[in-house]
Amino acid sequence: MRPNAIKRMLADGKTVLNGWCAIPNSYSAELMSHAGFDSVTIDLQHGPVDFRDAVPMLQAISTTNCTPMVRVPWNEPGIVMKLLDAGAMGVICPMINTREEAEAFVSYGRYAPDGQRSNGPNRTMQYNGADYQPNANKEILLFAMIETTKALDNLDEILKVPGLDGTYIGPTDLSLTMGKPPLLDPTDAGVLEAMRTICDKTRKAGLIAGVHTDGPKSAAKRFKEGFQLCTLLNDARILLTGAQNFVKEARGEAPTAAAKGY
Amino acid sequence: MRPNAIKRMLADGKTVLNGWCAIPNSYSAELMSHAGFDSVTIDLQHGPVDFRDAVPMLQAISTTNCTPMVRVPWNEPGIVMKLLDAGAMGVICPMINTREEAEAFVSYGRYAPDGQRSNGPNRTMQYNGADYQPNANKEILLFAMIETTKALDNLDEILKVPGLDGTYIGPTDLSLTMGKPPLLDPTDAGVLEAMRTICDKTRKAGLIAGVHTDGPKSAAKRFKEGFQLCTLLNDARILLTGAQNFVKEARGEAPTAAAKGY
Amino acid sequence: MRPNAIKRMLADGKTVLNGWCAIPNSYSAELMSHAGFDSVTIDLQHGPVDFRDAVPMLQAISTTNCTPMVRVPWNEPGIVMKLLDAGAMGVICPMINTREEAEAFVSYGRYAPDGQRSNGPNRTMQYNGADYQPNANKEILLFAMIETTKALDNLDEILKVPGLDGTYIGPTDLSLTMGKPPLLDPTDAGVLEAMRTICDKTRKAGLIAGVHTDGPKSAAKRFKEGFQLCTLLNDARILLTGAQNFVKEARGEAPTAAAKGY
Amino acid sequence: MRPNAIKRMLADGKTVLNGWCAIPNSYSAELMSHAGFDSVTIDLQHGPVDFRDAVPMLQAISTTNCTPMVRVPWNEPGIVMKLLDAGAMGVICPMINTREEAEAFVSYGRYAPDGQRSNGPNRTMQYNGADYQPNANKEILLFAMIETTKALDNLDEILKVPGLDGTYIGPTDLSLTMGKPPLLDPTDAGVLEAMRTICDKTRKAGLIAGVHTDGPKSAAKRFKEGFQLCTLLNDARILLTGAQNFVKEARGEAPTAAAKGY
Amino acid sequence: MRPNAIKRMLADGKTVLNGWCAIPNSYSAELMSHAGFDSVTIDLQHGPVDFRDAVPMLQAISTTNCTPMVRVPWNEPGIVMKLLDAGAMGVICPMINTREEAEAFVSYGRYAPDGQRSNGPNRTMQYNGADYQPNANKEILLFAMIETTKALDNLDEILKVPGLDGTYIGPTDLSLTMGKPPLLDPTDAGVLEAMRTICDKTRKAGLIAGVHTDGPKSAAKRFKEGFQLCTLLNDARILLTGAQNFVKEARGEAPTAAAKGY
Amino acid sequence: MRPNAIKRMLADGKTVLNGWCAIPNSYSAELMSHAGFDSVTIDLQHGPVDFRDAVPMLQAISTTNCTPMVRVPWNEPGIVMKLLDAGAMGVICPMINTREEAEAFVSYGRYAPDGQRSNGPNRTMQYNGADYQPNANKEILLFAMIETTKALDNLDEILKVPGLDGTYIGPTDLSLTMGKPPLLDPTDAGVLEAMRTICDKTRKAGLIAGVHTDGPKSAAKRFKEGFQLCTLLNDARILLTGAQNFVKEARGEAPTAAAKGY
Repeated sequence: MRPNAIKRMLADGKTVLNGWCAIPNSYSAELMSHAGFDSVTIDLQHGPVDFRDAVPMLQAISTTNCTPMVRVPWNEPGIVMKLLDAGAMGVICPMINTREEAEAFVSYGRYAPDGQRSNGPNRTMQYNGADYQPNANKEILLFAMIETTKALDNLDEILKVPGLDGTYIGPTDLSLTMGKPPLLDPTDAGVLEAMRTICDKTRKAGLIAGVHTDGPKSAAKRFKEGFQLCTLLNDARILLTGAQNFVKEARGEAPTAAAKGY
Repeated sequence: MRPNAIKRMLADGKTVLNGWCAIPNSYSAELMSHAGFDSVTIDLQHGPVDFRDAVPMLQAISTTNCTPMVRVPWNEPGIVMKLLDAGAMGVICPMINTREEAEAFVSYGRYAPDGQRSNGPNRTMQYNGADYQPNANKEILLFAMIETTKALDNLDEILKVPGLDGTYIGPTDLSLTMGKPPLLDPTDAGVLEAMRTICDKTRKAGLIAGVHTDGPKSAAKRFKEGFQLCTLLNDARILLTGAQNFVKEARGEAPTAAAKGY
Repeated sequence: MRPNAIKRMLADGKTVLNGWCAIPNSYSAELMSHAGFDSVTIDLQHGPVDFRDAVPMLQAISTTNCTPMVRVPWNEPGIVMKLLDAGAMGVICPMINTREEAEAFVSYGRYAPDGQRSNGPNRTMQYNGADYQPNANKEILLFAMIETTKALDNLDEILKVPGLDGTYIGPTDLSLTMGKPPLLDPTDAGVLEAMRTICDKTRKAGLIAGVHTDGPKSAAKRFKEGFQLCTLLNDARILLTGAQNFVKEARGEAPTAAAKGY
Repeated sequence: MRPNAIKRMLADGKTVLNGWCAIPNSYSAELMSHAGFDSVTIDLQHGPVDFRDAVPMLQAISTTNCTPMVRVPWNEPGIVMKLLDAGAMGVICPMINTREEAEAFVSYGRYAPDGQRSNGPNRTMQYNGADYQPNANKEILLFAMIETTKALDNLDEILKVPGLDGTYIGPTDLSLTMGKPPLLDPTDAGVLEAMRTICDKTRKAGLIAGVHTDGPKSAAKRFKEGFQLCTLLNDARILLTGAQNFVKEARGEAPTAAAKGY
Repeated sequence: MRPNAIKRMLADGKTVLNGWCAIPNSYSAELMSHAGFDSVTIDLQHGPVDFRDAVPMLQAISTTNCTPMVRVPWNEPGIVMKLLDAGAMGVICPMINTREEAEAFVSYGRYAPDGQRSNGPNRTMQYNGADYQPNANKEILLFAMIETTKALDNLDEILKVPGLDGTYIGPTDLSLTMGKPPLLDPTDAGVLEAMRTICDKTRKAGLIAGVHTDGPKSAAKRFKEGFQLCTLLNDARILLTGAQNFVKEARGEAPTAAAKGY
Repeated sequence: MRPNAIKRMLADGKTVLNGWCAIPNSYSAELMSHAGFDSVTIDLQHGPVDFRDAVPMLQAISTTNCTPMVRVPWNEPGIVMKLLDAGAMGVICPMINTREEAEAFVSYGRYAPDGQRSNGPNRTMQYNGADYQPNANKEILLFAMIETTKALDNLDEILKVPGLDGTYIGPTDLSLTMGKPPLLDPTDAGVLEAMRTICDKTRKAGLIAGVHTDGPKSAAKRFKEGFQLCTLLNDARILLTGAQNFVKEARGEAPTAAAKGY
């Protein structure tokens, strides 16, 4: 089976730069896969991407060496399994707030006896090779999003779930549930402390600490704090901000400040 | 944030005429948005419309002043949140039969602290403006479909759920669960009484009473009974009946009677 | 090979009611095919329908006994041949103004030795059977649109082209080139006379006289004048007018007059 | 209502050959429907087929006399009901492990009073006729997949669920949960015995015994064992193996052995 | 009819900033329409955008005040007319090298008596209003691309074609045919002189001078030279460069230089 | 630039096995690319594949080492150039009957000064690298289909066109224009002689001789005759025949004979 490149990078102590696709198109996904990211994640939660778009997007990423990942819309077995069958090498699941939810999520992503993933690899067997089935459980990365105060309360239990590979912080949802404005690069001391706690506990549990950021400057801060996988905004925001700044420069106006929210 | 036009109309005591899209296409959705309706609802429950079609359909509605709404396939968090992110200003949820189900539904449609909607507006922020997040909870309309005898039994409890904006009757499902034929313009006295009860209790609770009808004549009856939002059939039935009547007239036959069922 | 039903109807002296699809969707096309039309034409010229939509629309029509036809965007070999391969049993070609253009069009629609249609039936062989190739030339109907003053001038020559099955009038383009407003049910005496001339000459040449109309009332006039195939508006206009009239009736306003233009 | 052809075949003691579509396209589905199968099942669980593809695929199957069926991604009400509305005449549901799960599944597929299926037939009413609603409950076939040791333990209870029409074995998942390699034509004695048990108990309960196979040879064995409905691999594997064998033959190499796994 | 906003801006002596869409998706097109451009052009020549994508993209642009334009793949009547029917308010046609080609192009874009555009507005009538037909000829902008030495030789004749609104330079094709490397911001003296000649002659003829650029800096130069409409790169390149620079900054590398070629 | 693998194979005296995609889907195209072919050609002429499908299909082929090629619907500049921009490394053009047609075709596929291909590589630059433009003319293969008696008559002239890389015989069209039944593996002596003549003259001119076949047996004959590139049927026929034979074997019937026609 094709080795999961970012799993090996992380095992070697390297950090991972992750791209994020919210535009539901295989051409933009291919462009993102040529930008230099180590992995590219297709977001099926926030944005117009549906499963039907995700398949050609996974194919587009597969024309390069980027590791293809997905964020699922919710912790539901059908969509987790379909995306794995279609070739995703990592799954980020939103709103994991309890140990039970984490266990359910992991069970969807692992074949028996480790879980209840139904057998029927299809595109992924073309992409990964004929020995996919016996190796998939150890190659596929499963990330639980920690993005509420409830998840924070249950973090120790969540981190004990066998088969979970890492956590992934959604800074804006975490902020919202803490009663703060939803910033991708939070400034509130409480939110920042919560993020550091999640990172520290994750790493102490031997898992991967991932986080969403608004770009390279925030990512640099996060990497320094110990995070190992940072996402740099998403394609839609990179496009919009880039286009806006072109227009502003052409009109002699100051550029848009770095994206703040969502 | 762009104000929700029909919310204001209803607050002003006006009635709302709602269009209904079952044809999964952005051109037909745009045509429906030019027909004079106050709001246009994309139906993802009964009919071939999938999320992937719904996004360009929401864009098509957004070329006009109609308020875009959706009916979700089921009371599930993933699809409710994706459609809100894509720009829906109202959500109609089928088969809400208990207070718990209504609470779950409302929680999917409201940001913390009112609910558990995950943060990540994307298309909706282009459509509604940069101040979407702090205002969305109060602009978006959430309707629970009351369409079973069980829901009727639990109506008082359902109407107490904070954040619920209204009820929406599906006359055919209500009829079926009462053991009657599934008519859009019911004739059974028991069904009619049940519909009036739902309308009266909804309005007494200060909420919006909505209902599906088979056209203007039934809608007129419903408005007189106190309903505030009436849907007039759907695009597929308007097209089919219109085409059938053209053919019948061209052949010298009598027109099709008004749609009865489903 | 499956016999072309409307070809036989016309040979038997019957008139043909034709439906017209401008909404690029297979569900609406299936609805149109259940409305009672003898044939349903997919319009790839005016409207959003592209070849990619036309294939599932042809499949949708094939679930019924309606004869599937297409209008091509222009007199070009690639698209004529692709649509025949996909199962079209009739082709209406816009803007045939000279004998040479008519000859070119016919050559695209006929296998050697009658024309230059390239061999490679695919979907049409599933739909029509394994003996498609030797029979296609005589089952497929080819209509040249006569819709300019130039075409009118060259009509006698056009009607002599071997393999042409009929003419089809576009009343609005004909009106425009005659300097009149583009009405589907023309009122100008000159336009009406031109239409009758086209009909008469077509029939005298032993060909089929077809015409676009705005609905059953105009079609009745056209059938009386000798036209054999009449199209009744299109799906988009039937839907829009039907929806508008529902809204107007619900608001107590007078219905929209029958569609006039385009 | 159009009678469900394979239901009658099975009632008459005949066996059913079922085709299986994993390629998300209406043209390949139409080809499969011309291959001679009695029924064709669209697989929305394993493979790239999404609901949006399934609708034109159902239309494509409806151009022939094959009975259209679907496998849903998971035991969830929204997708079961949408596919029935779109014209599926049979539903195969994966991973039914308990009586409660079987009851839930059946409730999604039956109108009141037999279940909770929401009323709103649309495409299916065009395909099946105006009397669909009162007849659907008795024409639609519902199959529970028995594919885990847990399901095996609960089989007697599952078979008692009123409204369930049959079982369908997924040999590879059954193998996996028994700790054996995932083979479509299992060789392990324990797995084979489990399959025979499921078949026998299903038939004794008066239900239909269905099973997935890797082709005609395995199917022959299964039919002899008493199975009544056998699926022959799927379109993706037939295409891939066929193409591989062409290449190998052209290169003078031995053909690929029959598909083993998944 | 809705006035063509950029036509009025240009008549008032203002310059126009044009966005350019090569990603075939309505969400990215909507983002581009919120970036501040005066007009947004959908490119059907270079890039994956097909007519079927262009329709929802035109709808997406129509949710804003940007003027929607298109570049057609080639000087062919079918696609020019379909895009105008779908709502394009301007058409840029590549490779106009002779007066005859320019005349043909203009004829496709104008109704009789000014041209041969076939009548059948559909989406454009919803977007522009019921009085579209009598006004379209004067509201729609037609640009001939001048991008070869041959076109340069024939420029005087091309500029005399009645109904042509402007020229649009493709700097890379112009460079290539002059034997120079294909740069969006040319540095070769001969190419620069040719561009100025085109600009000057265009303006002297009372037409609009448009040009493709690689961003605001080049556009500033072009505006100073007298060009009135400048395109700023395209969405695909803005996205790719933006993403690449994010990655480089996160890795501590220097940013990508401004796009040079194509 | 990525070297064109089959160009090198042919230069080294090797033969090329070519796959052929008529199913408009990126998953089936990916399967075909894993079957062992040296190149895979997407057919936009005969079959439902449109440009919009071709782009993700080209991406799918690009996940493997197969050389991606296309057959265009007709000898038209727009579609030839769009497919090259999208990453096609070879173009097969149908119905080249004269030297002028061959010259036109070649001009569409070559940048100046060799031709008139418009500059604007997009996806192909991601796939092939930043040095695509100066190298494309020599890496891309252009094949003229010789498939009529007229082309046979003009063959010597056609073979002299600079920039043409090879010929490709369509045996069924060649047969039809010679008044013979359209067989993929012709049995008529005249047709066979014509095919050998085309092969011999092509090779003597130093060009590549390609041909369509119905499978490995015919291909073996063709390779012996000197053909260098053979296509083995297409995906649709491989699927249909494979499925039919499965059904027949399961029913105890004899298998379908090898595909004969089209």
